[in-house]
Amino acid sequence: MNFIRKIVKPRNEEDAQLYNELKKLLNFSPRSINKYKKAFTHRSVQMLDSKGIPINYERLEFLGDSILGSVIAAYLYKKVPTGSEGYLTQMRSKIVSREHLNELGKDLDLIRFVKSNIDQANVGDNIHGNIFEALVGAIYLDKNYNTCQKFIYENVIVPYVDIEKLEGKITSYKGLIIEWCQKQKKKYTFDTYEDSGNEAIKHFSVKVSIDGEQIAKGRATSKKKAEEQAAKRVYFAFQEEISLG
Amino acid sequence: MNFIRKIVKPRNEEDAQLYNELKKLLNFSPRSINKYKKAFTHRSVQMLDSKGIPINYERLEFLGDSILGSVIAAYLYKKVPTGSEGYLTQMRSKIVSREHLNELGKDLDLIRFVKSNIDQANVGDNIHGNIFEALVGAIYLDKNYNTCQKFIYENVIVPYVDIEKLEGKITSYKGLIIEWCQKQKKKYTFDTYEDSGNEAIKHFSVKVSIDGEQIAKGRATSKKKAEEQAAKRVYFAFQEEISLG
Repeated sequence: MNFIRKIVKPRNEEDAQLYNELKKLLNFSPRSINKYKKAFTHRSVQMLDSKGIPINYERLEFLGDSILGSVIAAYLYKKVPTGSEGYLTQMRSKIVSREHLNELGKDLDLIRFVKSNIDQANVGDNIHGNIFEALVGAIYLDKNYNTCQKFIYENVIVPYVDIEKLEGKITSYKGLIIEWCQKQKKKYTFDTYEDSGNEAIKHFSVKVSIDGEQIAKGRATSKKKAEEQAAKRVYFAFQEEISLG
Repeated sequence: MNFIRKIVKPRNEEDAQLYNELKKLLNFSPRSINKYKKAFTHRSVQMLDSKGIPINYERLEFLGDSILGSVIAAYLYKKVPTGSEGYLTQMRSKIVSREHLNELGKDLDLIRFVKSNIDQANVGDNIHGNIFEALVGAIYLDKNYNTCQKFIYENVIVPYVDIEKLEGKITSYKGLIIEWCQKQKKKYTFDTYEDSGNEAIKHFSVKVSIDGEQIAKGRATSKKKAEEQAAKRVYFAFQEEISLG
């Protein structure tokens, strides 16, 4: 008997491509490609499986939303030991807000995977957040809770969640970095350029250097977001020095 | 170096007693007794830890509520493959309703562990559900997500969750069992008796026998609930035969 769980190899060209792109996106090898295909299928496709159950992402969205909520709750619980129940609830609502999840889905350019019979222009903005949630649900079914947690850490918490900013204490990381550099007489550059590659949604990349040394990179769907992402990484790299002066 | 995580032995008589009772309740050895003590401390106690953070169950309740939601979501997703997103959402709301969680907390008699400066008669009914959620949060912090899942399966899903009943298809398991026995000319007894032991809340136990053989037991805070619990277990024991006739 062989207890090593087999990775099901994709059967056709299209699946093989999805498999490779997912591997890059997820940082692990997907086992069951069909779960991800479901996560990217809009109900307008009107497909049924062999049991007559509709194949689309709506049920996975329900599952992913729950898992996302509990991963974020556990993160906030540990991250903010002084936060009351009300504070934690409010912070979580901000993080999993429709607007925020739509941003996430767009930054990961998940729409490139979506099958729909409705024109992309007409599906509305929420599809980006919905398929992000469905993807979390698919990861849970394909792997487990811990893999979801890791994915959410890498793709939600590290690049986006920022208690200081959510609390309104820091409004712009770029502003903060520039101010600090000026005070410390350090030279800084934000080198921002379009970097969409083959993706359906326009992306921007930015490299931040301080005194000629590259400190951090960022990439997002707007210049401002990419810059904030990179500036936040700079902030964490120099956090101690910045808070001292 | 020793990589085996140490179980912190309770330091005093009171902790030792809590440790033993928890071990029975949880079906595993708790590691950090303080997490559970926190889960059972009402804010009226007004304790602070060494960092000035209040010690009470409110933050753990937030955490446990989230984890409970995602465990139930994953259960429903798998259990009801034909259920739409809306159906799953509705079923989950029923399962994690305040009323249902209060029932759960009462059946586990969690109130016996609670420290409060308010009279039990004045804390309100919701404390039972709140400390149930806080207990789930404490299990998560003390152990991990999988242990929570197991605890929720054993204490919520197996004894209480019942899709047919939630859907209103079966209104009384006791009625169903009696009807089936009469049809099949089987003798049945529901032997119900008070069985509170040392617990603060009155409990009832019931043994159900069919044709002289004991099939199932139930135990809850009312006769009716104990009987339904036992009858449901009988139903699952005879499910195939019952559905045939």
